Amino acid sequence: MPRIALKVEYNGKPFAGWQRQKDQPSVQGAIEAALARLEPGEHTIAAAGRTDTGVHGLGQVAHCDLQKDWDPFRLSEALNYHLKPLPVAIVNAARVDDDWHARFSAVERQYLFRILMRRAPSAHEAGQVWQINHQLDVEAMQAGANYLLGQHDFTTFRSSICQAASPVKTLDALRVERVQGLSGPEIQFHVRARSFLHNQVRSFVGTLERVGTGAWSPEDVRDALAAQDRARCGPVCPGHGLYLARVVYPSAVFASDPD
Amino acid sequence: MPRIALKVEYNGKPFAGWQRQKDQPSVQGAIEAALARLEPGEHTIAAAGRTDTGVHGLGQVAHCDLQKDWDPFRLSEALNYHLKPLPVAIVNAARVDDDWHARFSAVERQYLFRILMRRAPSAHEAGQVWQINHQLDVEAMQAGANYLLGQHDFTTFRSSICQAASPVKTLDALRVERVQGLSGPEIQFHVRARSFLHNQVRSFVGTLERVGTGAWSPEDVRDALAAQDRARCGPVCPGHGLYLARVVYPSAVFASDPD
Repeated sequence: MPRIALKVEYNGKPFAGWQRQKDQPSVQGAIEAALARLEPGEHTIAAAGRTDTGVHGLGQVAHCDLQKDWDPFRLSEALNYHLKPLPVAIVNAARVDDDWHARFSAVERQYLFRILMRRAPSAHEAGQVWQINHQLDVEAMQAGANYLLGQHDFTTFRSSICQAASPVKTLDALRVERVQGLSGPEIQFHVRARSFLHNQVRSFVGTLERVGTGAWSPEDVRDALAAQDRARCGPVCPGHGLYLARVVYPSAVFASDPD
Repeated sequence: MPRIALKVEYNGKPFAGWQRQKDQPSVQGAIEAALARLEPGEHTIAAAGRTDTGVHGLGQVAHCDLQKDWDPFRLSEALNYHLKPLPVAIVNAARVDDDWHARFSAVERQYLFRILMRRAPSAHEAGQVWQINHQLDVEAMQAGANYLLGQHDFTTFRSSICQAASPVKTLDALRVERVQGLSGPEIQFHVRARSFLHNQVRSFVGTLERVGTGAWSPEDVRDALAAQDRARCGPVCPGHGLYLARVVYPSAVFASDPD
């Protein structure tokens, strides 16, 4: 059965997360249903990261096994046709080896988190940013973020339902920047690691937002990390500002990647 | 009757344009209905630019006359409450003189047009960009655009239903740039003039897109302009990539404008 890797973009708003569920819409379920229109029967796809309710995908990667030896581009076109009008798009597809795995072969995940700083509701980006009505100090947030870099026991920033074997992870990057977006001033967090604990990025952002307001000092982040105590985490921020931006593999999967 | 200026943001997708219509949803109609929830009776608001179906507002400006001497901020909050869940937001409000007029006092309009260059449908920005599946030459488009600057008879770039008294307008800026957006590479057109003819920006962008592909030379734009002939215009591009970005008045209206 030829294996195909799919690069998937989605707006998380109408979905109860990536993972297929019996009675709720999911991104996985939508793609598997589209696959069933092409090759009847059951399909089970695997993804690099199982995003939560409301979380978006820009460069999620999944793989599927098919009967027919599909041309990857034609497969992506056919899937996009059957995915309409859902906000899910296959933005690239490539033939991969049978032992290549979207989740287990990945060596890095990159997440983006967007905060929009304004009072009025956003006509263009509601549900795609976490909106707050105060300014944030980028330099203080970056100073706090820097304490999180490297290998640590991230128990403080880990959901109580996290299923990872160990709370020890290595954070490779956490860059905070202010940008002018279509709807106003934004704070963007760019986060990179081989893998993440459940709710780790949202725990980071919720905590750093406290630093941005001045309620916490950057050193409070260091101390919360050292405490290895979930109760020391700042408020976990909402999922709808979070994007799985990119997944990296040892060798490039999407040769003609337009990005 | 105190007059209040409103800065309005909207996603044009669910509306048949700005202007109130008997049997179709409009942005003007939505705001007038929200006003009627605050002060019962008929309301008629005037706007700086009456955008077409599907066209968006980032910084549209309108004014309304009310019985009560509303605090502008409280008025904007109350309107936003009643506008929910429509994608329309009052992002600023200010008390203005009784002879101030959102349309007639304006001395400059700024439009933004966004082209997204990619094949797959956009999960995040469908209906907010004009999507095409080929690359465009920014330098050639800018060279063509430069021929349009200044005062000209813009008959070539004017809709046949345009009601302006004269086809002569002065184009103050038409800047073309390539940017990396959330959904991929974009071409953005930034256009400024005191006022515009009907469909003028969409006629410019549709024509310049032809230059960007190489089908037209920059000098073909010059010749089409000089011909003063609507038949010489390139294809008028779709409205859903167009945003009324900003309206300028002789003195600042929104003192605490967060932009």
